[in-house]
Amino acid sequence: MTSEQQLGAIRAAPGIIRVHGHRGARGILPENSLEGFAFTFSADVRVVELDLLVTADHIPVITHNPQLMSASTRGADGKWLCEDGPLISECTFAELQTFDIGGLRPGSEYGQRYPDQVFLSGIRIPGFDSLCQLIRDDDLDDVWLNIEIKSDPRFPANTPEIPEYVADILKPIFASKLEDRVILQSFDWRVLHECERQAPQISRSYLSYIPKPNAPLAVNIYEGSPWMDGLSLEEHRNSLPRVVAHAGGQVWSPFFEDLTAEDMQMARNEGLVVNVWTVNERADIEHMIDLGVDGIITDYPGRVQRCLLEHGLSWK
Amino acid sequence: MTSEQQLGAIRAAPGIIRVHGHRGARGILPENSLEGFAFTFSADVRVVELDLLVTADHIPVITHNPQLMSASTRGADGKWLCEDGPLISECTFAELQTFDIGGLRPGSEYGQRYPDQVFLSGIRIPGFDSLCQLIRDDDLDDVWLNIEIKSDPRFPANTPEIPEYVADILKPIFASKLEDRVILQSFDWRVLHECERQAPQISRSYLSYIPKPNAPLAVNIYEGSPWMDGLSLEEHRNSLPRVVAHAGGQVWSPFFEDLTAEDMQMARNEGLVVNVWTVNERADIEHMIDLGVDGIITDYPGRVQRCLLEHGLSWK
Repeated sequence: MTSEQQLGAIRAAPGIIRVHGHRGARGILPENSLEGFAFTFSADVRVVELDLLVTADHIPVITHNPQLMSASTRGADGKWLCEDGPLISECTFAELQTFDIGGLRPGSEYGQRYPDQVFLSGIRIPGFDSLCQLIRDDDLDDVWLNIEIKSDPRFPANTPEIPEYVADILKPIFASKLEDRVILQSFDWRVLHECERQAPQISRSYLSYIPKPNAPLAVNIYEGSPWMDGLSLEEHRNSLPRVVAHAGGQVWSPFFEDLTAEDMQMARNEGLVVNVWTVNERADIEHMIDLGVDGIITDYPGRVQRCLLEHGLSWK
Repeated sequence: MTSEQQLGAIRAAPGIIRVHGHRGARGILPENSLEGFAFTFSADVRVVELDLLVTADHIPVITHNPQLMSASTRGADGKWLCEDGPLISECTFAELQTFDIGGLRPGSEYGQRYPDQVFLSGIRIPGFDSLCQLIRDDDLDDVWLNIEIKSDPRFPANTPEIPEYVADILKPIFASKLEDRVILQSFDWRVLHECERQAPQISRSYLSYIPKPNAPLAVNIYEGSPWMDGLSLEEHRNSLPRVVAHAGGQVWSPFFEDLTAEDMQMARNEGLVVNVWTVNERADIEHMIDLGVDGIITDYPGRVQRCLLEHGLSWK
């Protein structure tokens, strides 16, 4: 049901590779904040990537981890949380608004990963509806949202039952009439299949992370994986783009180190859009340009813009 | 005539070292642009550093080089200038507005120095009065401008006669009643002495750059230097802070590598504020924190904020 015309805005074109600002622009401003998204738009980036969960009162909020992260969250007393928690799914929206997500804790391992991120105070976890309304602005009528729906088959308590969860998330998209300006992505492909049932007209992106030694994140691609909702690599000649195409996806989003030239070619054959995450180092950005991806998801949008220009390319 | 109360806002205080955003935040956004200044304020930085020259029609504009810089300037045809020029002093304000300063030229040496700077289009050289008006906004009533008046005794054609030049620059400051929220700095101390004559109530900052092998910038400190307006290091026991204090300066702004613990102590004895330029690397930032400077001028304000916090300090 997704039209090719619609996908054209996120597909690579001659001379164009799209830049997606990861969680806004995590390298520069607090992640998943309206302030970060506004900066990213003002930097002329036309796609922002973001993460959704829903609160106990079923309000979709823009945040990445199932629990409040101690390294980036201060309480009303101005102090960072001693440990991660509580669960987003157990807090009301009003309760979440008492926390400040503007600053990374000095000395934290997470903070050290983003040494240039400015330090703000009084920054709140945004309701997803706020961002949807923001991009109705005339100046932003060409921007897209690449929305990751967080879900983990191992921890069902972190999210509502999938049909209800997806319905909660679709509500602001429908209300703001953004169906043709969003991508719904998830590592949990059960969620994507529910999205297809409830909103077949919205583009779906299959996130993938294949097994590797000492993988720092949860691997979702293997035979019998609950993340893959019954789909099998082996049945598709061990080709991820074939699986995604077979599943009806329009977009495939592999971890950038997992992408091969062969898979890229297969994705092209299958008509898939390929967006890679999360690409921050210059050599890696250049390798993705060489592979000819459609979109580069990055914490440093300026760095990717500048690399593209040096290769005679642009992002819009 | 400058009051100590006034200087308190830019002096270090227990737990506080001030962050000055260099040309806004050159590491992140186009330098000396209103967009860059707005970002820097939104990043909670309370002092921005900027450069002034005046146009042929005597309008102060925020720009660094005496000529339009080819690496950062596109003409109305969208192409970068083939070579530096024309002189700012030979262009009218209206003529300057036809140039776009939003993007660094791919492959340029200057561009490679700031690989994360976002690429914008349609960005204009700002009139100084625009920034003065901007910071009259209620949200910005605590911000300061650290204003470098560009002047080079070797190239008098780049600027009007000094009395007229200073009068041009003071006009928007008086009009916006910002006398107690600005610092006037210059490598050309003749300019500072004219500032003292015309506006003794405004803080003056003596910029210094001492001789070194293969100095990439113009050295202004040596016996008989025309930059020093007749002042002599030798007459002040070769102590720059003594010279600055003797000259009636409130602020001394050395190149950060030129600052010694001994001079820092002397500056304290003389009651000077010490602002160092331009400090971008973590080890250098930490060294300046150890020396106990008042202000750190940086292209990466977030990086300095985060270093300060890791040392138990803040910037306001």
